[in-house]
Amino acid sequence: MRIYTFDTTLRDGTQGEAISFTVEDKLMIAQKLDELGIDYIEGGWPGSNPRDKEFFVRARELRLHHARLTAFGSTRFARNRVDRDPNVRALLEAGTPAVAIFGKTWDFHARRALGITEEENLKLISETVRYLKEHGREVIFDAEHFFDGYKANPGFALRCLEAAKAAGADVLVLCDTNGGTLTSQVAEIVAEVRRRFDGTLGIHCHNDADLAVANTLAAVEQGCTHVQGTINGYGERCGNANLCSVIANLELKMGHTTIGREKLTNLTSVARFVAELANLPLRADQPYVGRSAFAHKGGVHVSAVLKDAATYEHVPPALVGNRQRVLLSDLSGRGNIFYKLKQHGLADRLSEEARRELLERIKHLEYRGYELEAAEGTFELLVREALHPGLRFFELVSFEVTTRMEDDKHSRTHATVTVRTRDGVHSATAQGHGPVNALDLCLRQCLASVYPSIANVRLTDYKVRVLDSKKGTAARVRVLIEWSDHRRSWTTVGVSDNIIEASWRALVDAIRLELMRLSEQDETIEKVVEDYCWGV
Amino acid sequence: MRIYTFDTTLRDGTQGEAISFTVEDKLMIAQKLDELGIDYIEGGWPGSNPRDKEFFVRARELRLHHARLTAFGSTRFARNRVDRDPNVRALLEAGTPAVAIFGKTWDFHARRALGITEEENLKLISETVRYLKEHGREVIFDAEHFFDGYKANPGFALRCLEAAKAAGADVLVLCDTNGGTLTSQVAEIVAEVRRRFDGTLGIHCHNDADLAVANTLAAVEQGCTHVQGTINGYGERCGNANLCSVIANLELKMGHTTIGREKLTNLTSVARFVAELANLPLRADQPYVGRSAFAHKGGVHVSAVLKDAATYEHVPPALVGNRQRVLLSDLSGRGNIFYKLKQHGLADRLSEEARRELLERIKHLEYRGYELEAAEGTFELLVREALHPGLRFFELVSFEVTTRMEDDKHSRTHATVTVRTRDGVHSATAQGHGPVNALDLCLRQCLASVYPSIANVRLTDYKVRVLDSKKGTAARVRVLIEWSDHRRSWTTVGVSDNIIEASWRALVDAIRLELMRLSEQDETIEKVVEDYCWGV
Repeated sequence: MRIYTFDTTLRDGTQGEAISFTVEDKLMIAQKLDELGIDYIEGGWPGSNPRDKEFFVRARELRLHHARLTAFGSTRFARNRVDRDPNVRALLEAGTPAVAIFGKTWDFHARRALGITEEENLKLISETVRYLKEHGREVIFDAEHFFDGYKANPGFALRCLEAAKAAGADVLVLCDTNGGTLTSQVAEIVAEVRRRFDGTLGIHCHNDADLAVANTLAAVEQGCTHVQGTINGYGERCGNANLCSVIANLELKMGHTTIGREKLTNLTSVARFVAELANLPLRADQPYVGRSAFAHKGGVHVSAVLKDAATYEHVPPALVGNRQRVLLSDLSGRGNIFYKLKQHGLADRLSEEARRELLERIKHLEYRGYELEAAEGTFELLVREALHPGLRFFELVSFEVTTRMEDDKHSRTHATVTVRTRDGVHSATAQGHGPVNALDLCLRQCLASVYPSIANVRLTDYKVRVLDSKKGTAARVRVLIEWSDHRRSWTTVGVSDNIIEASWRALVDAIRLELMRLSEQDETIEKVVEDYCWGV
Repeated sequence: MRIYTFDTTLRDGTQGEAISFTVEDKLMIAQKLDELGIDYIEGGWPGSNPRDKEFFVRARELRLHHARLTAFGSTRFARNRVDRDPNVRALLEAGTPAVAIFGKTWDFHARRALGITEEENLKLISETVRYLKEHGREVIFDAEHFFDGYKANPGFALRCLEAAKAAGADVLVLCDTNGGTLTSQVAEIVAEVRRRFDGTLGIHCHNDADLAVANTLAAVEQGCTHVQGTINGYGERCGNANLCSVIANLELKMGHTTIGREKLTNLTSVARFVAELANLPLRADQPYVGRSAFAHKGGVHVSAVLKDAATYEHVPPALVGNRQRVLLSDLSGRGNIFYKLKQHGLADRLSEEARRELLERIKHLEYRGYELEAAEGTFELLVREALHPGLRFFELVSFEVTTRMEDDKHSRTHATVTVRTRDGVHSATAQGHGPVNALDLCLRQCLASVYPSIANVRLTDYKVRVLDSKKGTAARVRVLIEWSDHRRSWTTVGVSDNIIEASWRALVDAIRLELMRLSEQDETIEKVVEDYCWGV
């Protein structure tokens, strides 16, 4: 059966404690979700904060090929006429084809949080739904706290659904807002609602009892055909139903169609992409998409898996774009790289020795904490360097960077960089906003006369993560820098116990890569890198 | 009903990619699990590695008041007589009152992994169970891959259970070893087994489909009274059923008794203790026990929760030893801030004017890109400073930090810091692994003689995020640093277009806060002000 996916990473996901997206982040994620084949993308709550309002303005530039962009809001406030309610207005101004509005369906909440009667509550729901329908929107009604409401007062909860339905709501979404309902209760209550209502029913679960995915699947078994959740399960408190797990289970185990089997192979890369933008490590043990999801450690498991993967793998990892890892041998990653090189005919262009050297370099970097899957730029550079061993463009002679601050006022940084290029030694000194900026300015000044084209490369994101936190301020850090040259963007990585050195390495890789690319336009290499880094 | 808990953190948990416990760690965890009221503690597989063997020798020193220590192993090898099988011998030598042995119940596995016939497999099971029973052990039979086996060949799977039962097994544990079974299938298959077998049935689930907790509860609903899992869900691949969630759900939502309501209040501290020994951050969004499990961010949620916690909390957090937190952000209003003040017991101690000033300061910092919601430490410092406007402890005179690198070899950083304290000006110079480390060393050296207690504060995590990516390497960055003093942890934040300055500000806030806390803890406020208010 076709099950519709509704992603709320950009709205409910941002209620997660650690989650904070810029408008740019949100736009990039929306684009990615569309490519993944998500049916509805809830972009934010335009009535609640200016950032979400701006998102919907800028979202008009997006080219969504499949997804319906959705704005979120509440039913009108009790005091307001619906056509003058600022929240409802903001919903319409967002200009999206679909809107999701939540209304109270738990008597305790209507009484306690809003302080209104049952009749008033029904009016809020029906007037708001009808008004939005009259303005041509697809209306998704989120029945907030539906399961708690049903348990407390089933008559009240059902009358709220009826009000939304009668006013024309296209989807009735049953929400387990507090996330505390047991799976068997969800199944029972959804079955009861299904008996009373025709049309599309949806499910929205939270993970407070560690049951969000199971509850979502149970609801589908009882007739829901619209599932809400977030990438990686981000969301308020313990998070929302993890859409990665929900989609994979529906597609691979329950015989339903959501994004389709072909796009399913992008699931792992999308999960990692969203985690990167959230600046959170993707949980290694996350089902289906985590690094450890198909990693085998125990001796018994490893030897059985090498005979037949199905002995200890519930699905073939490639179906979700993930891969098997055997932790004892440490060979899996390199095999994969070699396979990719071969697939694109690059392996033949490398001598036996160059190939071995490349694999050794990658192994060494991974051992030191480099994460090449998140840094396709650095990986591409390694492959290009293996193909053109002599091509270095420039080499560091020395750099020095100093930051001074006095009397708690603004700090100042200056740097000196000396590099050797094919036409001699170049030195430059510059002041910068910070050490990375100062080093960047110096390096470009050194190279400007020899390679003027690098002027276009600029930093677009910069992330730092501690690798071994036991060591306090002496811990090793990994710096990921995202770059763009207006045509495309790429990420480079540097690892060191010195944040300046790690940043420098990522900076140098980015500049070298750009020079490599300019000197040799090679689409095959780009294809390999894309495949490897995004897990096709 | 009484449900028995079987913890395998020390055995299956250690198969998790990131998990590695020393023997000492394992002994401490076993003690803690006993205190928590766990019924069975599976300590390891003595036949598989020397560390686990040593654990059982040293475990004799433990004083377990409630739990039965359990050794894990397999049925005898096909070639060996049971009384000469080294694995079975190691099980007996472990000297535990209970043993858990796993046997094949999936025909595919018996054939493919062991290469034996059905008859031989049944013999392995019954001979091993009988032998261990003859030696006075409680025998827990883990039916490996039972659900996959039942789906493939129910007759074979059931005959394996029968063999174990007939030989005297005390508990038959149905294992979803690959973790891929759906909840409704688990319920159906357990119900079928329950109809055919009396006695104690157990359940052992893995989380590969994100369903381990739900599957465990479904099995209990169908008659299992023995539940296996691990603290925090550690385990191979995606982990085991999270025993924290299972126990809390059984006790608080399903009316069963496991460790009892009184000991349940230790659940959060045990989860953190085990995470601490595993050297992994406890997942903030982990149900029931995570830092964010009862954290409220959205404005609507916050104002409702302040009226009545049950509006957005599925259970009272105190029942599992956790607590409510209200987060600060642009999603929330003034309600959150006053809640915070109250929480720290400070609201009444601030004058109307001091309160207004504090709000202005917070607003201004947020506008500049500070994220106080993720930096409770900085927020607490602001409040404490509002309370004691003159209390500065120290002031920066100047710092200078320089990083040099030559010939692409290792970089070197040295710093000089000068600060003014109540007893004069202090200067220090130090080399560090990087600029933050070097500044940290200098600052501590400057303050050591005046405030020796700050030696305990150490960095545990460090995160950097670009705020306005359009500006390239000149972009503003936000640095979040997590600190710990062995009693508790807190996060401070610094924002600047210079990463060094931003890190410095977060560093200074952390040290100042620790001094504030120590001074207020030890003495009355009047005394503090008298002692420390040198700068008024």
